[in-house]
Amino acid sequence: MPINTGAEYIESLRGRNLRVFLLGERIEEPVDHPIVRPSINAVAATYDLANQQPELATATSSLSGRTVNRFLHVTESVDDVVLQNRMQRRLGQLTGTCFQRCVGMDAINALHSITFEIDRAHGTPYHQRLLSFVRRMQEENLVIGGAMTDVKGDRSKAPSQQSDADLFVRVVERREDGLVLRGAKAHQTGCLNSHWIIVMPGMRLGPADRDYAVSCALPVTQPGLTYIYGRQSCDTRSLEGGTMDAGNAMFSGQEAIIVFDDVFVPWDHVFLDGETEHAAPLVDRFASYHRRSYVCKTGLGDVLIGAAALVADYNGVATASHVKDKLVEMTHLNETLFAAGIAASHESRPTPSGNFQPDGLLANVCKHNVTRFPFEIARLAQDLAGGFVGTLPSEKDLANAETGPILRKYLKGRDGVRVEDRMRVLRLIENMTMGRNAVGYLTESLHGAGSPQAQRVQIARQSNLAEKKELAKRLAGVDGSAASRRD
Amino acid sequence: MPINTGAEYIESLRGRNLRVFLLGERIEEPVDHPIVRPSINAVAATYDLANQQPELATATSSLSGRTVNRFLHVTESVDDVVLQNRMQRRLGQLTGTCFQRCVGMDAINALHSITFEIDRAHGTPYHQRLLSFVRRMQEENLVIGGAMTDVKGDRSKAPSQQSDADLFVRVVERREDGLVLRGAKAHQTGCLNSHWIIVMPGMRLGPADRDYAVSCALPVTQPGLTYIYGRQSCDTRSLEGGTMDAGNAMFSGQEAIIVFDDVFVPWDHVFLDGETEHAAPLVDRFASYHRRSYVCKTGLGDVLIGAAALVADYNGVATASHVKDKLVEMTHLNETLFAAGIAASHESRPTPSGNFQPDGLLANVCKHNVTRFPFEIARLAQDLAGGFVGTLPSEKDLANAETGPILRKYLKGRDGVRVEDRMRVLRLIENMTMGRNAVGYLTESLHGAGSPQAQRVQIARQSNLAEKKELAKRLAGVDGSAASRRD
Amino acid sequence: MPINTGAEYIESLRGRNLRVFLLGERIEEPVDHPIVRPSINAVAATYDLANQQPELATATSSLSGRTVNRFLHVTESVDDVVLQNRMQRRLGQLTGTCFQRCVGMDAINALHSITFEIDRAHGTPYHQRLLSFVRRMQEENLVIGGAMTDVKGDRSKAPSQQSDADLFVRVVERREDGLVLRGAKAHQTGCLNSHWIIVMPGMRLGPADRDYAVSCALPVTQPGLTYIYGRQSCDTRSLEGGTMDAGNAMFSGQEAIIVFDDVFVPWDHVFLDGETEHAAPLVDRFASYHRRSYVCKTGLGDVLIGAAALVADYNGVATASHVKDKLVEMTHLNETLFAAGIAASHESRPTPSGNFQPDGLLANVCKHNVTRFPFEIARLAQDLAGGFVGTLPSEKDLANAETGPILRKYLKGRDGVRVEDRMRVLRLIENMTMGRNAVGYLTESLHGAGSPQAQRVQIARQSNLAEKKELAKRLAGVDGSAASRRD
Amino acid sequence: MPINTGAEYIESLRGRNLRVFLLGERIEEPVDHPIVRPSINAVAATYDLANQQPELATATSSLSGRTVNRFLHVTESVDDVVLQNRMQRRLGQLTGTCFQRCVGMDAINALHSITFEIDRAHGTPYHQRLLSFVRRMQEENLVIGGAMTDVKGDRSKAPSQQSDADLFVRVVERREDGLVLRGAKAHQTGCLNSHWIIVMPGMRLGPADRDYAVSCALPVTQPGLTYIYGRQSCDTRSLEGGTMDAGNAMFSGQEAIIVFDDVFVPWDHVFLDGETEHAAPLVDRFASYHRRSYVCKTGLGDVLIGAAALVADYNGVATASHVKDKLVEMTHLNETLFAAGIAASHESRPTPSGNFQPDGLLANVCKHNVTRFPFEIARLAQDLAGGFVGTLPSEKDLANAETGPILRKYLKGRDGVRVEDRMRVLRLIENMTMGRNAVGYLTESLHGAGSPQAQRVQIARQSNLAEKKELAKRLAGVDGSAASRRD
Repeated sequence: MPINTGAEYIESLRGRNLRVFLLGERIEEPVDHPIVRPSINAVAATYDLANQQPELATATSSLSGRTVNRFLHVTESVDDVVLQNRMQRRLGQLTGTCFQRCVGMDAINALHSITFEIDRAHGTPYHQRLLSFVRRMQEENLVIGGAMTDVKGDRSKAPSQQSDADLFVRVVERREDGLVLRGAKAHQTGCLNSHWIIVMPGMRLGPADRDYAVSCALPVTQPGLTYIYGRQSCDTRSLEGGTMDAGNAMFSGQEAIIVFDDVFVPWDHVFLDGETEHAAPLVDRFASYHRRSYVCKTGLGDVLIGAAALVADYNGVATASHVKDKLVEMTHLNETLFAAGIAASHESRPTPSGNFQPDGLLANVCKHNVTRFPFEIARLAQDLAGGFVGTLPSEKDLANAETGPILRKYLKGRDGVRVEDRMRVLRLIENMTMGRNAVGYLTESLHGAGSPQAQRVQIARQSNLAEKKELAKRLAGVDGSAASRRD
Repeated sequence: MPINTGAEYIESLRGRNLRVFLLGERIEEPVDHPIVRPSINAVAATYDLANQQPELATATSSLSGRTVNRFLHVTESVDDVVLQNRMQRRLGQLTGTCFQRCVGMDAINALHSITFEIDRAHGTPYHQRLLSFVRRMQEENLVIGGAMTDVKGDRSKAPSQQSDADLFVRVVERREDGLVLRGAKAHQTGCLNSHWIIVMPGMRLGPADRDYAVSCALPVTQPGLTYIYGRQSCDTRSLEGGTMDAGNAMFSGQEAIIVFDDVFVPWDHVFLDGETEHAAPLVDRFASYHRRSYVCKTGLGDVLIGAAALVADYNGVATASHVKDKLVEMTHLNETLFAAGIAASHESRPTPSGNFQPDGLLANVCKHNVTRFPFEIARLAQDLAGGFVGTLPSEKDLANAETGPILRKYLKGRDGVRVEDRMRVLRLIENMTMGRNAVGYLTESLHGAGSPQAQRVQIARQSNLAEKKELAKRLAGVDGSAASRRD
Repeated sequence: MPINTGAEYIESLRGRNLRVFLLGERIEEPVDHPIVRPSINAVAATYDLANQQPELATATSSLSGRTVNRFLHVTESVDDVVLQNRMQRRLGQLTGTCFQRCVGMDAINALHSITFEIDRAHGTPYHQRLLSFVRRMQEENLVIGGAMTDVKGDRSKAPSQQSDADLFVRVVERREDGLVLRGAKAHQTGCLNSHWIIVMPGMRLGPADRDYAVSCALPVTQPGLTYIYGRQSCDTRSLEGGTMDAGNAMFSGQEAIIVFDDVFVPWDHVFLDGETEHAAPLVDRFASYHRRSYVCKTGLGDVLIGAAALVADYNGVATASHVKDKLVEMTHLNETLFAAGIAASHESRPTPSGNFQPDGLLANVCKHNVTRFPFEIARLAQDLAGGFVGTLPSEKDLANAETGPILRKYLKGRDGVRVEDRMRVLRLIENMTMGRNAVGYLTESLHGAGSPQAQRVQIARQSNLAEKKELAKRLAGVDGSAASRRD
Repeated sequence: MPINTGAEYIESLRGRNLRVFLLGERIEEPVDHPIVRPSINAVAATYDLANQQPELATATSSLSGRTVNRFLHVTESVDDVVLQNRMQRRLGQLTGTCFQRCVGMDAINALHSITFEIDRAHGTPYHQRLLSFVRRMQEENLVIGGAMTDVKGDRSKAPSQQSDADLFVRVVERREDGLVLRGAKAHQTGCLNSHWIIVMPGMRLGPADRDYAVSCALPVTQPGLTYIYGRQSCDTRSLEGGTMDAGNAMFSGQEAIIVFDDVFVPWDHVFLDGETEHAAPLVDRFASYHRRSYVCKTGLGDVLIGAAALVADYNGVATASHVKDKLVEMTHLNETLFAAGIAASHESRPTPSGNFQPDGLLANVCKHNVTRFPFEIARLAQDLAGGFVGTLPSEKDLANAETGPILRKYLKGRDGVRVEDRMRVLRLIENMTMGRNAVGYLTESLHGAGSPQAQRVQIARQSNLAEKKELAKRLAGVDGSAASRRD
């Protein structure tokens, strides 16, 4: 029986006895941990949306012949790629954070064409293995995480040049029944909340890096895996009780380090093993998919614009011309982000394996704008919020018998607005610009799917300067070309 | 026989005896005037492209049953809208300037749905008149200009409030056989190079402005029309002989004032007459089409990026990291422009009349970025060009027997580059950033299809703040809504 | 005996029995509260610097004839104003946060000239009262806080128009021996860490607002005062023990709401009472002083630039061209902030009362840049930090016997760098961009000394458009003026 | 008798028989050439201002004991440096262009300290020679040009590595009575309008570049010199007659190539000859002076802001909130430019030779902002101007009997504004953003005194990252430093 609802999904995570550390302690049951739970809720929203808006969040897979969650769907048309973006924006609007399920979606789509091409070049059986794996995921409706980013050590050195060979995940043993992995992947979005993880290399590899050229799938419960939870700004507000100071009590993102302590993976879940020349194309193709997935941040932007409009209204300044103009600017920037992402999806082209790949240049342009504009949107949101976004007393002060009445008197905005509501909106803006979900809205926007410089390298590669130079030569009349005539 | 080639088009403009003034003199034959000719060449390129790349620049019209120039095509699918953008970028690349034919294309597409809706509301015969008109244009393959922007007088006042009633084009007489127009339209792109002009109102109108609510088509040769040519920076370089100092000797844009001195238009070419409440929707719908048409500027951007890359190469600094980085930035900005335009086209939706209308919000976002980024791209191009973009001697100095050898010695860049070629590329950059085509690349990018504030007003209208506020309330837990629970 | 060292200062705060609430509880002794203490340490640094660099942080006052802390000095020369900025930058470098003592300094300097002018106009005794007060502060070397910003209620309404008359601090009673205040001041920087507070009005007032036109000094221990502490992002990390996760364990800012529950102030500490027309000049003059005081943020910028350079070095990428370029950009922005502040100080002019007032236009320009550039500097710092700035495990995980060795292995950067040191620098960057001192570096940079729009209003007022128009007219030859001749 | 008035200055330029080429022809008398004359008028303004505002534009030189034009003054105090900036801004306001006399002023000030230091190191007699030269210039009140920028050939190569040894100006012969120069200097501001020129090297030189390490003074009439005039956008409008279309008919900048065809310079005018290690300090010191001299552009900014305010007023939209806000933004940017320049001057420090040198870091920051903000100010000016800035008919059309009345009717703005005046302001904005003075306001702002990357290199050198890293380490507690303690 596949998982159907968000509630069923949450239950599916219980009792897995994962080895998870958070704030210096091993935690028994992540599902019940107040810091972890909001991140699980965010993934659960991907299940609930599939029931609420199936035209948006499900698709019919020709692979399994089933209606499947769109996050598990291999794209079969341009519309499939476009609909991913629409679903992502909607989930961003509904959760105000990272819902963590895109990496797996983008990984199976990147591997679909790459395994096909490796097989064609090397006669390997990767593509069929991948299809079997995806079919199973679809049948059970599971969450797939994607593990790409290595801890990297000295970033000026290749994997095989590091002083410790384990600083990139590598194959330390190849057995008859499978291979053995060692190393660690960092910044692993939603890894605890996944059922399976797909490992991929994270950079261009040379012949000396053969043991680092590995891609495979494994359950998160596989022996030898340890998870060390990353701190987020204001994470412990989730421990305080109450729902106001968290800003967004219900939802958050999740990132952890996954440590592979000689973890076994059977061959039928291995999709790349040593074909180093395919590492770069895999990374590029995944990146094209994933960089355009950052359209999700426009959903968060919608929330933040709404919060800024709301607080301006509560403060009594909704009609001031500079306030309206700042809301326009926020919207303009947010839609500029959306435009490049949805354009990359609309401009998808079929791959030899039959799925659809978004436009690489536009996908990089989308993500590169994402590394800039949310910071400006956040600045404008704080501007509209006013100083209380940084100086507001706690909800416990509102509950306190002595200070509560004082705050209800003095934190009043315009008539008709509840002080509590004004405080809640201020806390939401804090949450997204400095607090827990600022990690997702700002830091992840910078570094997720590759740091800004990674996009610049790709934009340079795809900018086709040679052709542009010819255009210029023609019009300038260089080399006696066309335009040297006058009529 | 329809016009087929660019050369035929140019011939079609001869001998029309238009009343045209330029630099204080009436000109006999615009086709042969060195200042006018480059603008005609640019329109001619729209004919030649239809022959060279018919899949891009032609379409099959269900109206006439013919293969027609895409500029005369009423869109019948989303792809039709998208292909307009691809054609526009290509023509921008080929001409490095404004090729002037978009206004007419966008006008017939906006009128297609608006006339349909007016007829439905008022029982008027406008839609069929428009279809007949378009069919004739397709059959003869003519150029349609679009006249929207009035001279406006005091911009804080409505048409009927001006101290001179003629400061917006208006109907001064309604006869049995047609109506009579008086007034002037400014900034009329390519009007001299058109065969017909479609007049449209340029702003929201109230009941008192009834005589200003007029749309109709008339030939540019109609008695009573006078054209006063607008100056462009460096326009007279086209009079100097030579091909270098013009920067782009072959192509330029064109804008003029059209004066309507009691001009008669028969009823069968009238598409709006007094239905004031439809003026605003017509302007908005035209604007959505036309603002996304500014994707053409990415073609100009391609030329300028190419020119900047070329001059860096000629200067011997093509591999400097800051040079490469600036080219990436230029490309990133240029593709961000493209993204919003092509996204608006991809997100087109059918209208009641059956053609397709681009997404209004994204179209405005496209144009609004166009009012900003070309200025930064131009700045970076001048940066890469080096100081000679502002201090280069003339081509006559290169031709001069005394100074020619000096310049050939001292204007040398890296080995293997001809001094003349280096000068030509510098002139092209000057042309696009300060010279004749800076008017098209920069000033027109600001004000064409509406000045920046016009887009901000539209973005505000379409930003759906009410829904965004609800998203924020839900996550903040305002009004005791969903997210106040913790699990 | 005046307070001399930082340690003496800290002792001076003990046992005052203030009514302070923090996180819903009244706290016994703020000095010993882990959340409060870092803010006290920051003020203490202003005492220690006076001993370590007396040429920078002290001055000889002609008022008391003593060497006094510069924060208590009434400026007697342009250099005095300039040296305030140098001291502020240095303290920003030493604390990485807001050291809270500028408001008092700027308040006594603004009141110095304003009280002089009120007395001249009204025959009041305010100026001498102020001088006596300042002399006493100098003799005892006390900390003065400044209370200007009211809670404001509906921001579209004047004080006397609010539905609750107490939403701006006001005089509710005038007795023979003094007056009685009611209301609340928000965002009160360092109020708990002060010995005295100067109350000032926060906006332009009309005749109806007479009871709101009040300025006076009172000890923070005055009966009737309640302090409700503002939350800061990550404030409770200071409660966790350890020194790493706080990012900057030693120093933080402080802002609280001060509630005036019918607080008595004797007449000899009253500096304004009802002279409404002087409220706006007082606010403007204080704002000029205080907006240029935001040069302190360049000291924080120095720390953040240093942290970004350090983490790039630890990551092994210090020589990458894009890394070096980002450090240049951060420095350029930071020095642009400094430039406008120090220029405003250098351009100070004497007031009728004899102290020196910085240039108002440049002071506003300084602050307005401060509302923008730190956000971009912060973005670049996060860019250089890499993803771990948002996903780093806690210091307790480093201390844990199971996870500690894992982290020491896998969080390694380039050879020779201690994992703990790398983590510490990442936490400092988190602290300043999302954590506790982001409130001071970002939010306070937006709203402290007036939100962005307040500066725009002032810049508009001081932009002298009339004179600029005349310059343009002359060169354009408008009205037949000079330049219509050619030689 | 020294030159006193602007008119006397203009007469002093007559009959010098310079070898000048412009638009392919040798010109007889530059003074009377309509293209050249506006640039001479701009220099003349520096003489007239000395009479009109002597406190601003003159100084008392301890060298000659005379009151001298400030452009010929060696700074003797911080105020002298500051007053240069005030004079520069004023002249920018009065001319709206480059008045060309700063290079010489900055050259004598840079050489003052450098020659002193070379003499101290090498026992050379350069300093006294320079003092004698300056004294003579003061006595005769002459204009000194400064020739630094070589034509450079392949910019990736040092002077001695070029395929043609003459691509940097060099000593080709050393005779008993003097040396002989060959080569060419490009972008020579105001060279024709000068009486003397000071040659300087333009970059860091190595031991192999000894013959390129030369600085000396020579009269512009020296045999062997040829001048080839640089084209400017719209330069030939000055040939058309009329005063409107030029935009600023009275004033323009001037840049030309100076060719040195074996030009003799006697030893007593040589200030550097072969001391290659002093080339870089000379360039740096000149650059510090000259980069802060770009404060002149804020004077041009004042004109452009005034023109934009004026045109908005003429269009009837002066009170629209977005219009007012754009004027604030322009002012804010313009004053930010000013701030860094004036701050660099205020922060001047004495050199060993006794004159004062502005702060290098702030001077570079000033110039770097100048490479950015004028482009944004220009964009905003075009925004406020409206579309006519790119499409306005010519003044000959206004004079024409047929079109004149039409234009007077239809180019009307708000009531009470003369059409001619509206056109004049539009032409001034065109002049500064695309026309003749756009070269000075935009292109020269980019490349004058060094292109943007040159400032970034200097900012990197002076950013003191090592100290900033220590600040970060201390607060983060790296290496167990101070802040690891909590209280």
